[in-house]
Formats: sequence, C-alpha cells, structure tokens
Amino acid sequence: MPSRLNSTDAGFEADFRALLGAKREASTDVDDAVRDIIAKVRAEGDAALIELTSRFDGLELTAATLRVGADEIEAAHAATAPETLAALELAYERIKSHHERQRPSDDRYIDAIGVELGSRWTAVESVGLYVPGGTASYPSSVLMNAIPAKVAGVERIAMAVPAMRGALNPLVLAAARLCGVDEIYRIGGAQAIAAFAYGTETIAPVAKIVGPGNAYVAAAKRRVFGTVGIDMVAGPSEILVIADGENDPDWIAADLLSQAEHDVAAQSIMITDDAAFADAVAGAVERQLGQLSRGETARASWNDHGAIILVPSLDAAPALSDRIAPEHLELAVEDPETLFARLRNAGAVFLGRHTPEVIGDYVGGSNHVLPTARSARFSSGLSVLDFVKRTSILKLGPEQLRALGPAAMELARVEGLDAHGRSVSIRLNL
Amino acid sequence: MPSRLNSTDAGFEADFRALLGAKREASTDVDDAVRDIIAKVRAEGDAALIELTSRFDGLELTAATLRVGADEIEAAHAATAPETLAALELAYERIKSHHERQRPSDDRYIDAIGVELGSRWTAVESVGLYVPGGTASYPSSVLMNAIPAKVAGVERIAMAVPAMRGALNPLVLAAARLCGVDEIYRIGGAQAIAAFAYGTETIAPVAKIVGPGNAYVAAAKRRVFGTVGIDMVAGPSEILVIADGENDPDWIAADLLSQAEHDVAAQSIMITDDAAFADAVAGAVERQLGQLSRGETARASWNDHGAIILVPSLDAAPALSDRIAPEHLELAVEDPETLFARLRNAGAVFLGRHTPEVIGDYVGGSNHVLPTARSARFSSGLSVLDFVKRTSILKLGPEQLRALGPAAMELARVEGLDAHGRSVSIRLNL
Repeated sequence: MPSRLNSTDAGFEADFRALLGAKREASTDVDDAVRDIIAKVRAEGDAALIELTSRFDGLELTAATLRVGADEIEAAHAATAPETLAALELAYERIKSHHERQRPSDDRYIDAIGVELGSRWTAVESVGLYVPGGTASYPSSVLMNAIPAKVAGVERIAMAVPAMRGALNPLVLAAARLCGVDEIYRIGGAQAIAAFAYGTETIAPVAKIVGPGNAYVAAAKRRVFGTVGIDMVAGPSEILVIADGENDPDWIAADLLSQAEHDVAAQSIMITDDAAFADAVAGAVERQLGQLSRGETARASWNDHGAIILVPSLDAAPALSDRIAPEHLELAVEDPETLFARLRNAGAVFLGRHTPEVIGDYVGGSNHVLPTARSARFSSGLSVLDFVKRTSILKLGPEQLRALGPAAMELARVEGLDAHGRSVSIRLNL
Repeated sequence: MPSRLNSTDAGFEADFRALLGAKREASTDVDDAVRDIIAKVRAEGDAALIELTSRFDGLELTAATLRVGADEIEAAHAATAPETLAALELAYERIKSHHERQRPSDDRYIDAIGVELGSRWTAVESVGLYVPGGTASYPSSVLMNAIPAKVAGVERIAMAVPAMRGALNPLVLAAARLCGVDEIYRIGGAQAIAAFAYGTETIAPVAKIVGPGNAYVAAAKRRVFGTVGIDMVAGPSEILVIADGENDPDWIAADLLSQAEHDVAAQSIMITDDAAFADAVAGAVERQLGQLSRGETARASWNDHGAIILVPSLDAAPALSDRIAPEHLELAVEDPETLFARLRNAGAVFLGRHTPEVIGDYVGGSNHVLPTARSARFSSGLSVLDFVKRTSILKLGPEQLRALGPAAMELARVEGLDAHGRSVSIRLNL
C-alpha cells in the first residue's frame, strides 16, 4: 500500500524524511563492466562495437551496417500512420516554437572607464543522442532531445539506438527524420557512449552526449564526462500533485498513475487538505490499476513508493513540495498562481485542473527531460542552454590597462604570483 | 624544452594530436579513500570532521571551533593593508557589475491557441563554497565564486577552507567578508565536501557545491554529484596566445608564464605566423624564468607542456584554436575582432595587445572560473546561471486541452502508455 502521512501527526517529520531519503533504484554495480567496455571500444573501434552488439543485442553487424540507411529511415516514415505522423508533427512544431524563445542573447558593452566586456554564445559543434531500445524506445524522447540541439544551432547530431535482434522502433526513426537527424547507429549500451566519446573508424566523436538510458548507459556517461559533456543522469519519473477537495478523484488518480506506469521505481505523491478526497483518490487509483496494460508496473510503483500526504491546509504544501523538489508538479487547485508564487523547487509545473502532466510529455511545447531525484533543487530541465556555451570577452586599451593594472598587480602580489604581476607591469613600463 | 610545431610539416597532424591528447595530470587514484571518508562523515558527523581534520590538517577542533568566529573574520579584515583592501574592493565591484547582467529573465506567454507557457528562474537555496588551503588559497577565488551566487540570490553561502596546523589566509577571510559570507568552516578535503552534501550536527547540508580543490576534493565532488549539484571539476590552467610578429616578445612571454607559474601541469601555447618572433618569445621566456619566485614550477610547466606552433598565416589559427578549445585565449593581433569572429571554442577571450589574461583573473569583471582540458567545446565559465534553476510552466483551460489532447493521446497510444492517455481522455469524457 502507498504511504499515508498526516502532517499534524507526531511522527510526520521522521516519516517524511524517510520518504525523501528512500532509495528507489536498485544500485546495480556495473562500473567495472562499463570500464572494460569503454576500454575495448577505445582500443578496437568498430570491431569492438560489432562484437559487443553481437554479444549484448544478438545482432550481427559489419562496419557498413552500423549506420541505419537513408532508405530504412524513409521506409519507417512512410510506414507511419497519418494520425501518428500528424501528432508527431504537432509536437515537433510546438516544442520548436517554445525552445526558440530560449536562445540566449550575446551581450557586449563598454563600461564607464572604457573597458569592453561581453559574453558570446555559440553552439556545441556536435552532439550524440542516445535513445534506449526495447519498450522505452520513445519517439517523443527523440523530439525532446533533438529539437533543442537543432534550435541551438548544433551542426551534427548523431543518434544511437540499440536494435535488439535487429528490431528498431520505426517511430523513433520517423521522429529522427522529422528533426533532420539522419546519422543513426544501431548500437546501444556503454559501447555506444564510448563510441560517441572517443570515436571509431565509422563514428566521429562528439562534444556532448545527451539522452536517457539504463544503468550501463548512465555509468558510461559518468565515466566519459570531462572528455565530453553530458546532460543529467536521469532517474525514474516522479509526480507530485497538490490537490484541493474540488477535483474529480478519477482525474487525479489518472495523473498519479501516468507516472507510476513508467517504472516500478517511479514515484507518485499527492498532497491534499481533504481527508475524504484522499480516500476517494486512493480508491480511484485501485480501480484504475486493474484497467492498465502496464498495471503491474504501476501497482508496484504505487504500493512501494506512492504517498498521500494530508495537510490541515494547502498553506502547508509549498514547504513540503520544495523539500520533495518534484520533477513534475501539478497544482490542481482553484488558484494555482498564488500557490505557484510560493513554490521554488520543481522541474516543471502544471497549473490548474485542466493541465494534466501528460500534455508536457508530448505536445505542450516545454521539454519533458526534467530533473529527478530531488535535483530540481539545483538543476533545470533540458533546454537550448544545454547545447550552447559562452565565451567571456575582455578588451582593454592602454588607458584602461593603466586604470586597472595596479589593482591586478596588487592582488597578484598578495597571491604570490610574480608572472601574473609581470604581464601587467611589463606593459605599463613599471 | 617546449614543443615546437610547424603546421606545414608532414608530421604536424600527429604531433598536434599528441599535444591535444597528452595527459598533464598524474591520476592519483584516491577514489577508495574518498569513499571511506564520505561514509565516515555521513555516519559520524562532526566527530568525523574533528578526527579527520586532526589527522590530515594537524589541527585539533571541537564542534564549537569548527566554524570561524565573527571576531576572527573582523580581525582578518582589520589586518588587511589598505591597498590590498582597495584592490579587492575594486575587483568586487567590477565582478558584481558584470555578473548582474547575467541574470536570466523569466518568460511567460500565451500562444495562438491560448496555451500559457513559460520559464521561471529561481535561485539555488544554499551553496557550499570550497576554498583550497595552503599556497593556492586565493582571495580572488572567493570573489569569483561567491559574487555570482550572491547576485543570483542564493540566501545561504557556506564556505570551507582547510587550516593546516591552524593557519588560515586572512585575505580569504577578508574577501569572504567583502562578499557577505560569514558562515565559514575550517575544514577541507573530501570531509568538507561530505559535510556540505550530507550535513553534520553543526553544518547544514547545501544544495550545490562549487570551488576548486585537490584530487580528493575533485573525487569527492564527483561522488556526491546527484545528491547535490556541483560546478565543473577544474583542471590545471591553460593559455593560448595567438600572436602576430608585431608584439613585444617580452609581453607575450610574460603572458605565457602567467599560466605556467600556477602548476607544473599548466599549459601555455602560442600560435604565430612569424618564425623570428617565435624564437624571440622562446628566448624571452627563458630570460624571465630566471626571475620568478615560482620559476621552478613555471619551468616544469613550460618545458613539459608548453608549445609554440608556427603557421604560414594566422588564417590557420582559428581551426587549431578551436581544437585546443583553450581556457584562456589571447588575441595579440592588429585586428582581434575579425579573428574572434572566426573562433568558437574558448572559455574567455582577451582582445588586443593591451589585454593580458591576468586582468581577467582579478579586476576585469568577468569570471576566472573557466572550462579547462578542452571542455570549452561543451561548457562555459562560472556565471549567475550556475546558481539558478528554471521551472517550466504549462497552463491549459478546457478548450486548449480539447485542442491538444487528441495528439497527446495518440502519442501515448503508440508508446504503449495507457495511463498517460487516460489522464487526458478522462478529462475530455472520451
């Protein structure tokens, strides 16, 4: 059964801490295996990819068939049902429009003493996009990762998607085509991450790797970080719904289950001020669980990690919510704006009773790659900013160097850095 | 002797690759030791900090003396020479002014079909700032890390600085006071990082940890990443100077040495199109090396990692520079703007003959915490953005849900996520 907490109970703080601290993922220690896989790909290149893909994915490749052909991509697109294509296209356009507003502006200015300063943003040259295989091979994930990169101006996006026994999700190929991604490799796991980071004969290395993956992919990304950039290492999905008693319990139950069905380690939490409503939602969850194709997963998630927290008033919700720092936060209340103004830590917020989180997964326009595991305290969802980098600019003339030089020399002196001081003094004939 | 490369030589590409790929830091494997230290601090709290500080720093503390007293901070400030204080204050004001321009703007808008979207930025609640002890205990580093956090609106900044046998650099305390940082602990190493990440009886945990440190600190930051945010893991300093033959060789030699003196693993590279000038700079470096208090360090860095690259024309410089992706890039040429427009990967650029990199270390206003080890290909220097995070916003009414819902349901359907679909369909009575 999911946890039931009441914020006025004596043991609440301890129970709430336990909820926050609970480890939801089994920590498989794959680090040694991943180290060996990376070393093998660095040493043997394509040959290692071919051998490992045979071993792990049951697929025999050659250097020539590592890359998915243009004909395969076209065929996947052609085979996609018109209504699916239309939905992907709507999502594509809305995500693109929203992310176009995220492009940062360059800044260049001259200060009061004539020093020129500034910041210039440029796109990362090349990005590797990892797409999981199997049941978690989602076309929406391709859109959410590729579109911000394209909007940022990344020239080269290479994609890796494992093809278990040869099978690729045609919708993943269709989504890639929609985004203009045509460099796709049928490889996965730590070997794909290694190929992106270090390159092989067939695959040129990239500057940054993004996209979700299993424990091997996550461990490999951590290992190659520094050699290349990486996005966040995403954990299982989470939703927090703050709901008053005026909601339809079935709507809220559906929202809680929409995250629970992702993964047995997903977490769905509701905070409400209405005990009868809490019971009604718990009942609705039970009823709906029986009707889901992924009901077993959702039930495990809800029973092991789900929680309903009763508070005397929703005034108490923001402080609890900020400690949870949820990936997704629904504010199913009459006046969501007032509540939102009091909140701080959340990856994405969904305001009002008619904004189910699922809209943000697909067609809202915002990104569905969001900080999990309480990392919304210090990080943000994927955006155009993840695909650009900033160069800071300084420009002085002789007059400005005379004005600022002595202070720089003084600080170099007290820090014991002679050569620092000299690079100024020598220009000032001091 | 430093490497001398000529881009027209047959072996150039191989030599240049070797230069790029050379490992400059000895990789001390401290990961096991760091794991144990973190576990000990998590289990024993203050007692572990006290024991480890006694063992590693030769300093006996109690829970009451972990934190530096307000009187000590005031005394350090009072003991600072007026000219040093004035230089720190100039640096503070300039860094603050520049970083105030980096605050990101919230965005909130309603699209053509009435969907409200947006992004809201909020400050990270609390930050731990690590300051190394010993000779690398730099007041300028306190300014560069604390000011962006303050400008971002971080409410709590806690600082850790190891005090070997009790000694603290009073200028570090004076710089902290200038930045309004008064929560300072005399601890260091992996134990300080663990205390920041997990908290102890005396030290409340933080949401993000920033600041440079030795191999133990770097390994500890990598380990706690996820529990808290971290900034980049900084490597040794680097400078690339692109210089024509019209420079004073002594000026450029001084600039190359200003990075070389930091660390035997630092790297200074010059690209020039003038062979005689290259020789003159090499000679000037030799002469100046004899005059530096840190000459031994600078000599080791220059001989082991320094390089002079001769190109037939500076037209060839941007492509090489982008592959180096230097932390600091000086453009000591007649028309630096034209060259800069052709460049992409650099942490910070210094335009023209009168902008030695050292100005950026102290009083230019830009940040001196910059991406090293070629990571300017995918990352940026420290800024206000490192201390804020973004919440994305979606708000639909019934009409917008009717417009977008069917496409979301279609994508949920093809991804096999029933509960996703239901959270929309149930609201549309479908």
